[in-house]
Formats: sequence, structure tokens, C-alpha cells
Amino acid sequence: MRFEFEGGEDGEWRIERIATIAGAGLAPAERLTVRPARNGGDPRAAFLLQGTISNIRYATAFEAGLLRARQEGLGRPHATRAALIPIRKSSAWWAMAQDERRHIFEECSHHTAIGLEYLPAVARRLFHSRDLGEQFDFLTWFEYAPGDEAAFEALVARLRASEEWRYVEREVDIRLGR
Amino acid sequence: MRFEFEGGEDGEWRIERIATIAGAGLAPAERLTVRPARNGGDPRAAFLLQGTISNIRYATAFEAGLLRARQEGLGRPHATRAALIPIRKSSAWWAMAQDERRHIFEECSHHTAIGLEYLPAVARRLFHSRDLGEQFDFLTWFEYAPGDEAAFEALVARLRASEEWRYVEREVDIRLGR
Repeated sequence: MRFEFEGGEDGEWRIERIATIAGAGLAPAERLTVRPARNGGDPRAAFLLQGTISNIRYATAFEAGLLRARQEGLGRPHATRAALIPIRKSSAWWAMAQDERRHIFEECSHHTAIGLEYLPAVARRLFHSRDLGEQFDFLTWFEYAPGDEAAFEALVARLRASEEWRYVEREVDIRLGR
Repeated sequence: MRFEFEGGEDGEWRIERIATIAGAGLAPAERLTVRPARNGGDPRAAFLLQGTISNIRYATAFEAGLLRARQEGLGRPHATRAALIPIRKSSAWWAMAQDERRHIFEECSHHTAIGLEYLPAVARRLFHSRDLGEQFDFLTWFEYAPGDEAAFEALVARLRASEEWRYVEREVDIRLGR
């Protein structure tokens, strides 16, 4: 199922900050709308990003079971803070075979293991964009309570310090509240 | 890069046969056009299928190296026979984690190993459609010389007899010549 994230003047989420971490940034906007994709966004939108919920790409059945047992869904009433982090990885990343990418993703970078440490506080949903021909490869959406803000910063900092992030050539960090 | 396959009255390839292997079929057509995707096909087309060239999903670096060393490109002048085989897999397949799908794909079904046996005679290109919201998950395009027709039939028969194919719930087999 394809979703879109539109930055503009309306939307449930208030944009508090758009930080460019690597590569080109995104135009500023005041509010963010998240909705199932439709044909064409608002022509006045600052940005429109699309991504689709897809199958698991790296996690093993054991890891997926741990995630399922510990995670909570999006939309929890107390989770009034959110982040949308679009990233694009380099052609060197995408040229690697499955076992090479998995090795960097988990055995070197502990991507799933790190995320697990912050469950259920930080809920997360990954949207795939690369095969849609979008400007980013992934859009990751996070939701957490105001009291878990420091934990979320630690999660993001640990991933950015990982081997995997050496292949991230564009990253924008959008923080939101509702 | 996204491509589309349009069945209609025009196109470089003559459609010789459209066989429904599993699930719903496709409308008959005389010719097939293969081109980079554009906005909207011919409204009179019998069918329009889109897919995108993407990264490797299962092959290891070792397997990918074997494939690269042995395969030849599409468009060889002597390869005047082609097949377009769109398939859709079941929700049970897509609900599995990466290691479970890899296990069925290669360790049980020898998908890459079987394909390797028919290189370089049968050239092959995979297009991903599932994340585009298409009616099929994959479109596989094969090209071979008339003298390799029996080899191609053996390749297809071996894959259809595999454990992996128990998860294929829709499959159409379109044979072409030029």
C-alpha cells in the first residue's frame, strides 16, 4: 500500500524542524499530511514524498519475531512526537549482493538489534521509495512520547555512527508534533 | 528504471501464444511493445504491465559473480525467440522473513543454480512490479535462439516443479518471436 507525505500549510502534524543531514535538503513547510497515495498532490505543496509498505528485506524470522513481540502500533495517543527521515543510499550500496548488504546492515551495524532496544517506546514504520523512482530510497516514520525524546536522539545517533550509514548519501530529518 | 510491456496491434514482438498457468489470464493480443514507462499506455491495449529493474534480492555475491561471468545481454541478433512470464506470489510468501524466503528460493528450489545451467543460451531480465501496485509481482523476460527452445522449456518446467512455485498463485506465459 502506497502512502504519501505532503509538506504544506495543512495537515495533522506540525513541522518543528527540517534538518539536512547529507545531500540536498527539502523546502520548508509548516504542516505535514500523511495519507494513502492519490493521483497528484497539492501543486502548492513544499514537498511530496511517496513510499510503499513492502516485505521484509533483511530481518530473519527470529529477528522479525522479536520485533513483533515487542513493538506497538502507530497512532498511540501519548505518542505526540514524530520524525520523518527520508534517506537515499549510494549506488555502491545497491550494487552489492544480498548477503553483502545484510552483513553490513546487521552483522556490522546491528540495525535491527539497535531498533529493538528502543521498543516499544519508539514505534517505527518503513516505506520503500526507490523502486517508485522517487528522490529518496526510504522514508522512515517514527512516533514516540515527549518523555522518550532523548531515547529517540540516541537511537538516531547510533544508527548514523554505523557502518551502514557510510552508504547514506542523502538524509533529511523532519521533526513533528501534534 | 521502469519499463512497460503493452499487448496490442503494434510492437516489435509477435505474440505466438498466451497460456494461463495459474489464476486469471490476460486478454489476447497480436503484438507486444517493450519500452521505458511513460504516462499512460494506448487505451486500446489488451494489457499493459509495468516493472522496474531493481537490486538483487536473494543472490549472494558468489552467485551474482557466477551469473555475471556467464550471462549475455538482451538483444542478441540470433535470439529471435522470447518469453514474458508475469507471476504473482501468495501472501504466505510475502509474509515470510528474508531468511525463510531465501531458503525456499535457493536451498530448496535452486532457482539461481537452475538458471545458471541455461546460461548463456537463455538470457533473462527480471522486472519488479509488486511495490508499484501492479497486478503481478514480477515480470521475467527471456530471450533465446530457436535452437534453444527445448532448453528453455526444460528450464521453465524445472522451476515450476520447485518448492518455490507452490507460492505462485498467478502465472501467465507469453511466447514471442521477431
